[in-house]
Amino acid sequence: MLSRDAFSAWMNIDVRKIEKGNCTLSCKVSPQMLNGFDILHGGITYSLSDSALAFAANSYGHKCVSIETSISHLRSVKNGQVLTIRANEIHRGKTIGVYQVDIINDENKLVSKFKGTVHISQEIW
Amino acid sequence: MLSRDAFSAWMNIDVRKIEKGNCTLSCKVSPQMLNGFDILHGGITYSLSDSALAFAANSYGHKCVSIETSISHLRSVKNGQVLTIRANEIHRGKTIGVYQVDIINDENKLVSKFKGTVHISQEIW
Amino acid sequence: MLSRDAFSAWMNIDVRKIEKGNCTLSCKVSPQMLNGFDILHGGITYSLSDSALAFAANSYGHKCVSIETSISHLRSVKNGQVLTIRANEIHRGKTIGVYQVDIINDENKLVSKFKGTVHISQEIW
Amino acid sequence: MLSRDAFSAWMNIDVRKIEKGNCTLSCKVSPQMLNGFDILHGGITYSLSDSALAFAANSYGHKCVSIETSISHLRSVKNGQVLTIRANEIHRGKTIGVYQVDIINDENKLVSKFKGTVHISQEIW
Repeated sequence: MLSRDAFSAWMNIDVRKIEKGNCTLSCKVSPQMLNGFDILHGGITYSLSDSALAFAANSYGHKCVSIETSISHLRSVKNGQVLTIRANEIHRGKTIGVYQVDIINDENKLVSKFKGTVHISQEIW
Repeated sequence: MLSRDAFSAWMNIDVRKIEKGNCTLSCKVSPQMLNGFDILHGGITYSLSDSALAFAANSYGHKCVSIETSISHLRSVKNGQVLTIRANEIHRGKTIGVYQVDIINDENKLVSKFKGTVHISQEIW
Repeated sequence: MLSRDAFSAWMNIDVRKIEKGNCTLSCKVSPQMLNGFDILHGGITYSLSDSALAFAANSYGHKCVSIETSISHLRSVKNGQVLTIRANEIHRGKTIGVYQVDIINDENKLVSKFKGTVHISQEIW
Repeated sequence: MLSRDAFSAWMNIDVRKIEKGNCTLSCKVSPQMLNGFDILHGGITYSLSDSALAFAANSYGHKCVSIETSISHLRSVKNGQVLTIRANEIHRGKTIGVYQVDIINDENKLVSKFKGTVHISQEIW
C-alpha cells in the first residue's frame, strides 16, 4: 500500500512495524510541513495518524475506508523532530473497526491522540 | 499568515475570502495528494479544513491554537478536482471558539464535514 | 419508537416534528437532570441529541445504530429552561449516515452542537 | 461533588476510586435506562463517561468544564448488566485537560470509548 501512496511517500514515512490491527511508523519533520506559526501543521499530525490507521485497518486484506476521525493536539512540534506514530486496534467487528493512534516526540512526550472509525468492506485490496 | 505557512503553500491553497470568523478557500487536487487507493488522502481533506479553521479563528488578531478537531469523510475525491473549503464560526467565547468547515466538490456535493475547537489566547500574532 | 423508549420518556421528550432524515424535539429541564454545579448535566444534553439522531436516522424504517458521536458544549443550561432539539441529515449513503443536532435554549442561543454517524442495517424495525 | 449531582445519583453511580486525574465508577443498568430497541440508551453510556470525566478532571480542586467530547459505541448493553467506568488522564496543561474513559461490561468486554477535553478554570469549587 505505501509504495502506491503518494502523499505518505511525500511525508517520508518510515514503516517500522505492521501486524494485524497494529502498526508503528516514524517521520522526521521537515520545513515544508510547518504552518504560519513555524510549528508542525496540525494537518500533518492528522495525516500521519490517518496513514497509520489505514495501514493497521487494511492489514487483514479487506479494504477499509475511514468514516469518522478525531484528533486532540496536545503539544506543538518543531522542525527536525522525529515522531513515532503508533496505531492500535480497539475494536474490530464485522463492518466497523475502531483504532487509536498516539504520536510521541523525541522526548517520549505525547503530541497527539487520534481515534478513527473505519468501514470494513468485503472487497480484498 | 498564509505567506508564512509552508504546508498551506505546498497544498496550493487559494484564499477566496477571509472575514472575521469565516473564510473560503479553494484547492485543486494534485497527484502528490493521493493515497494508495488513488483517491485524495484523508489527511489532505483534514489539512485543508484545519488551514481554513486557522484562518477563520485567527482573523480577529488573537492567536488561536486548535485543541480538538473531528472530520467525517463523506465522499472520495479524485485527482484534478477543484475543492471549495468553507469555514464558519459556530461559537466564540472568551477562551474557546468552535468552527465548522465544509468541503464541497466540483459538483457541489459535500465531501467532508469538520468541527474544530480552538483555544483563544490573549497574544496578538 | 418513542413509546417503547424508556429513557426518552423519563426525559419527558416532546416530539414536535419527525420527517425523513430530520426531527425536532423539545424538553423542559427538571431538577433531576442537574449536575454537581447545579447546571444541566452534559449527559442529558448528549442524550437529547442522541434521541433526536435515533428518531431522524430511523425515520426511513431501516434500523440504524449509532457508532461514533461527538458533542461540543457551548453554554450552560439552568433548571426550568425549555430546550429545542433539531436533527438534520448531512449525508445518507447505503451503509453510513451522518446527522447534526443543534440544541437551542429559550433565548434562541446555541447550547450544543452534536455530530453523529450511524450504521444503516438492512433490518426493518 | 457526587452528593450534589442529581443526575449521577439518579443513575445510581457507585464511586469505586477517585485519585488525582483518574477515577473508577460502577453502575447497574436498570429498565429506565433502555431505549426503544430494549438496549441501554447511548445517552446513559455517555452520561456515565461524562460523570467519570468530571470526577477525574475536578479531582485537583480547580473547576473544570467539559468543552468537547466524543464517544464510540462498540457493543450493546442489556438490562441488569453491571458496568465499570474508568477515566484516565491523557494530558493536563494549564488551561486544557484531556481524558479518556473506557466502559467495560460484566464479561470484561469494551462497551464504549470516550475522549473528553475540559477547560481548567482558576476557580476552586
